[in-house]
Amino acid sequence: MITSRHAQRVIAAAETQAAALGVCVNIAVLDATAHLVAFLRMDGAVLGSIDVAIKKAKTAALFQTASHAVWDYCKPGAPAPALEHSNGGLAPFAGGIPLRGEHGALEGAVGISGGTVAQDLAIAEAAAAALLG
Amino acid sequence: MITSRHAQRVIAAAETQAAALGVCVNIAVLDATAHLVAFLRMDGAVLGSIDVAIKKAKTAALFQTASHAVWDYCKPGAPAPALEHSNGGLAPFAGGIPLRGEHGALEGAVGISGGTVAQDLAIAEAAAAALLG
Amino acid sequence: MITSRHAQRVIAAAETQAAALGVCVNIAVLDATAHLVAFLRMDGAVLGSIDVAIKKAKTAALFQTASHAVWDYCKPGAPAPALEHSNGGLAPFAGGIPLRGEHGALEGAVGISGGTVAQDLAIAEAAAAALLG
Amino acid sequence: MITSRHAQRVIAAAETQAAALGVCVNIAVLDATAHLVAFLRMDGAVLGSIDVAIKKAKTAALFQTASHAVWDYCKPGAPAPALEHSNGGLAPFAGGIPLRGEHGALEGAVGISGGTVAQDLAIAEAAAAALLG
Repeated sequence: MITSRHAQRVIAAAETQAAALGVCVNIAVLDATAHLVAFLRMDGAVLGSIDVAIKKAKTAALFQTASHAVWDYCKPGAPAPALEHSNGGLAPFAGGIPLRGEHGALEGAVGISGGTVAQDLAIAEAAAAALLG
Repeated sequence: MITSRHAQRVIAAAETQAAALGVCVNIAVLDATAHLVAFLRMDGAVLGSIDVAIKKAKTAALFQTASHAVWDYCKPGAPAPALEHSNGGLAPFAGGIPLRGEHGALEGAVGISGGTVAQDLAIAEAAAAALLG
Repeated sequence: MITSRHAQRVIAAAETQAAALGVCVNIAVLDATAHLVAFLRMDGAVLGSIDVAIKKAKTAALFQTASHAVWDYCKPGAPAPALEHSNGGLAPFAGGIPLRGEHGALEGAVGISGGTVAQDLAIAEAAAAALLG
Repeated sequence: MITSRHAQRVIAAAETQAAALGVCVNIAVLDATAHLVAFLRMDGAVLGSIDVAIKKAKTAALFQTASHAVWDYCKPGAPAPALEHSNGGLAPFAGGIPLRGEHGALEGAVGISGGTVAQDLAIAEAAAAALLG
C-alpha cells in the first residue's frame, strides 16, 4: 500500500507537471481501497474540481483501471448503463490513474482535475510515474 | 466577495428583467465559494425551479463559467461524461452566470430558473450587469 | 400564502433588528409548505448558520409552531426521540417562528441564525411582527 | 485565504507534533469557506478518522471557532440541540482549530483526528501556530 511519503512524492510530481503545462489543478491520492491518503489544491484551481479529482482517483482505485476506461462499460450502447452512478458517483473520464508498485501491484490511485482532460491525464501519468522514480 | 447589498441589487435587476419578459422566476445569488447570499422566489414561480436556480448558480461559481458552458464538457461525445453528477449535482444549462467585479475578479454567481432557458439566460445577464451598474 | 414582497418586508425587519442588536445573521423565509421564498445572509454572518436558518424556518413551517417548541417532543425523556432527524433534519431550537396573517392563518415561517439563540429569537419575532405591520 | 504552500506548512507541523507524541493522525486543511486545500493521512492512522479530521476542520471554518466550542451550544441542556446535525454533520469535539493570519483574519481551519482528543487538540494547535511561524 502506498505510504504517506510516496503519496507526497506523487503530489509533488503532479504539481511540477501542472506548472510546466501552466494549469492549476486539484490532486488526490487514494490507497488501493479508495481511502484518501493525500490531497492538494493548487492555488487558483477551481473549486468544482476538488470533488472531481477525488472521484477520478476513486474510480481508478475501485475498478483498478484508468478512470476513462470505465466509460467503455457505461457509455451509450455499452453493457453497463448507469455504472457511473454506483459507489456514490464515479468520474469516468480522463485524469484518474492506478498507482502501481515495482511488480505491478496496485498501491493506490491518483486523480487530477482542473485542466483540460488531456492535461489532467498527462499530469496524472507523470504523477504515477513518480511513484517508481 | 459580493456584499448583501450588491446581492439584493442583482436580485432586483433580475426581477425587473423577468417582469419585462412576463415570466416568474427563482433568483439565487451565491458568493464565489458557492455559499448562498440571497434568494428570491417571484410570486408564481414553479417550486421545481428553486433547486434549479441554486444549482445553476453553484455550477457557475464552482467552475467560474456560465452554467451552460459546463455542458460542453459533459454532453454526449464530450470528454467529461457524468461531470454533471459531481459536487452534489450540477445544472449545466443556461441561466447561471458568474458575477464579476470591476476588474473581472469573481465575486459570486447568479442563477435563474422558471422561464425558458433563453429567458433565464437573458435575466441572468441583466442581473449580472447590474452588479457593476 | 406569503408573497415575495411580504417576504422581503420580513427580511428587512429582521435585518433592522439584527443591526440594532449588533449581530450579523442569516435570514430565511419559507412558505407554509416549507419551500424557500427569500433569503439574505448579512455581511459577516458565519457560513455555518446558513443551513441552520433554513432548517429553523423549515422546522417552524412543517410543525406550525416555534422551532424550539419541537424540542419539547424530542428532548431526553420526551415521547418522540429522534424526531429531530426526520424531514432531512430539523433545527429544534430558538430562532424559527411561524408567520401568520391577519386572522392567524399560517402563511410561512422565518428562521434566523448567527447570533445567540436569544438574539435569533428576538430577531425572528420582530421579523414575524413586520408581516402584519 | 490560505495558500497551498501555507497549507503544506501546517500539515508538516502537525506531522512533526504527532510524531513527537507518538501517534498517527489524519490532517485536513480547509480554506475559510470550508473547501479542502490539503490533506495527509499518516501511515497507520485509522481509516475512521479521515472523515472526522475533515469534519472537525469544517466545523471550525463554518463557525469560526474551535470545533469543541460548538459543543457548548449543542450539549445536553445547552440551547441549540441537534446543531451538530446541521451542515451535513459537524464534529463538535476537540481537534479542529481556525487558522488565522497576521492580523487575526480567518484564513482557514485545520482538523486533526486519530489520537486522543487531547492529543488531536495539541497537534492542531501546533499546526495552527506554524501558519504564522
